[in-house]
Amino acid sequence: MKFVSYSIDGALSYGVLSDFEDFIWDLPSIQQKYESPKLPESLLEGIKMGESFMDAVKDALEFGQTQDDCSSFKISLEKVAFAAPIPRPGKNIMCVGKNYRDHAIELGSEADIPSHIMMFTKAPTTVIGHEGLIDCHSDVTSELDYEGELAVVIGKEGKNIRRDHALEHVFGYTIVNDITARDLQSRHKQFFIGKSLDTFCPMGPSITHASMIEDPGQLKITTTVNGEVRQQSDTSHFIFPIDEIISELSKGMTLEPGDIIATGTPAGVGKGFKPPRFLKSGDEIVIEIENIGILKNKVK
Amino acid sequence: MKFVSYSIDGALSYGVLSDFEDFIWDLPSIQQKYESPKLPESLLEGIKMGESFMDAVKDALEFGQTQDDCSSFKISLEKVAFAAPIPRPGKNIMCVGKNYRDHAIELGSEADIPSHIMMFTKAPTTVIGHEGLIDCHSDVTSELDYEGELAVVIGKEGKNIRRDHALEHVFGYTIVNDITARDLQSRHKQFFIGKSLDTFCPMGPSITHASMIEDPGQLKITTTVNGEVRQQSDTSHFIFPIDEIISELSKGMTLEPGDIIATGTPAGVGKGFKPPRFLKSGDEIVIEIENIGILKNKVK
Repeated sequence: MKFVSYSIDGALSYGVLSDFEDFIWDLPSIQQKYESPKLPESLLEGIKMGESFMDAVKDALEFGQTQDDCSSFKISLEKVAFAAPIPRPGKNIMCVGKNYRDHAIELGSEADIPSHIMMFTKAPTTVIGHEGLIDCHSDVTSELDYEGELAVVIGKEGKNIRRDHALEHVFGYTIVNDITARDLQSRHKQFFIGKSLDTFCPMGPSITHASMIEDPGQLKITTTVNGEVRQQSDTSHFIFPIDEIISELSKGMTLEPGDIIATGTPAGVGKGFKPPRFLKSGDEIVIEIENIGILKNKVK
Repeated sequence: MKFVSYSIDGALSYGVLSDFEDFIWDLPSIQQKYESPKLPESLLEGIKMGESFMDAVKDALEFGQTQDDCSSFKISLEKVAFAAPIPRPGKNIMCVGKNYRDHAIELGSEADIPSHIMMFTKAPTTVIGHEGLIDCHSDVTSELDYEGELAVVIGKEGKNIRRDHALEHVFGYTIVNDITARDLQSRHKQFFIGKSLDTFCPMGPSITHASMIEDPGQLKITTTVNGEVRQQSDTSHFIFPIDEIISELSKGMTLEPGDIIATGTPAGVGKGFKPPRFLKSGDEIVIEIENIGILKNKVK
């Protein structure tokens, strides 16, 4: 199942993409007719419900799809403005820095390949949805850059999670464009400022439920800018695979349902080119991850 | 006014310290009898209400204090377990790194005095209240350290805030102990992991409303460990004063009511000693900031 959040007629809603991803099953609409079991008001609340959420969704969909007036539960993609699947995370988005060797080298040298996981965060105010506009912040930065990344959404609370249990804590996977102001990133040393300007975290379009992804460490990832391939890799090249990230991060720190962990970006960011190729107004960035989806955003 | 959050008989509540700070005016209790104007359910929601919150609190207090049965609104300090004033922030706590010259030097050299603000974050799961126990996480770190800091609580949303308007965006001030696992901090390069273990952000005991603080850049700050003075400084020694921090941080990033910004720690942290003096089980850390309060916590 692929979960989406979106606004329709000005109101925020959420639902599930149809099998052919050509329309959305609007869960609150089904809920209105189908009283029990109760679905929450947002996808984030659903994720926090734990396993009972998936059962509730399955029951609601089964009910909705078999109603004579089931068309009233379907929303065409053209009618919605996508929000991020979790439009307002309850804490900062956590990001792994330099998790592909070739990216660590393109921004520095072999010496920059980390031997320990490097984590920084992005403010929740950075989040925008699929097809949302990225602000170029030209008054603050002249080095706007993209980073295509697979992101993990935590589904089950945990602390000191063992590697061999780590993936049980994943609700699903989405795509994040970890937009970065390179000049701010290096000027302020710690990455938070250069990573946290408003609109710097396009996310989505959907969260693919973990049950649909056999191995998150075997997914092709491609980023294009204006149709030109810039990043092309595979999550098998992670320095720190997802189970290790979750296990390490949870050592002494409680991970909570709805937490979002971006897993790092491969080589091919704008700053890696000589001369650098930073983003400018009008550029369109498209990130595609196998079985996860296609996240598309333009720079305002 | 000094605002506190606390649990009493297992339920979370909030209120205002009495003038002599010997008891708490419990705002929800007053609210129950005094229907209008409406107070929200938590201090964080109050801060989000904006200026009308202070008016509502003043009205409620005036009403409460003049009732014959006003003793029913008073709670003795012994009866409560303090929570942090904002027990669960809506995003990570933002922290300025190395904002006192002497602290930058004690952890490195003159070369480590930053020329630009360095910001990192702590997860919201780190927050505990006054007298809450700090977990020593001995399975993860052997270099547990303290950092006494003045923290700013934002009261009014803003982006690209001018320095001369910055303090208008402050709701009030509190104290934060920016507990740090030094070994994790240096091993993982970016500070997030070493700063974000559970219980690593003691905060409080209260938020002093901004109207009570003439100049947040002229406050004495002292940290003791087991009664021995370790840090003694004054916020006048900030490299980046509060108005500059708010202005810089808001360049392209929206600051929101309830945001917490810790302003950095002076010299005298455990790692600064030769040999280092890290925290151990049973140690009591007391941070006192002039006109703000006294934050006391023990290591479990």
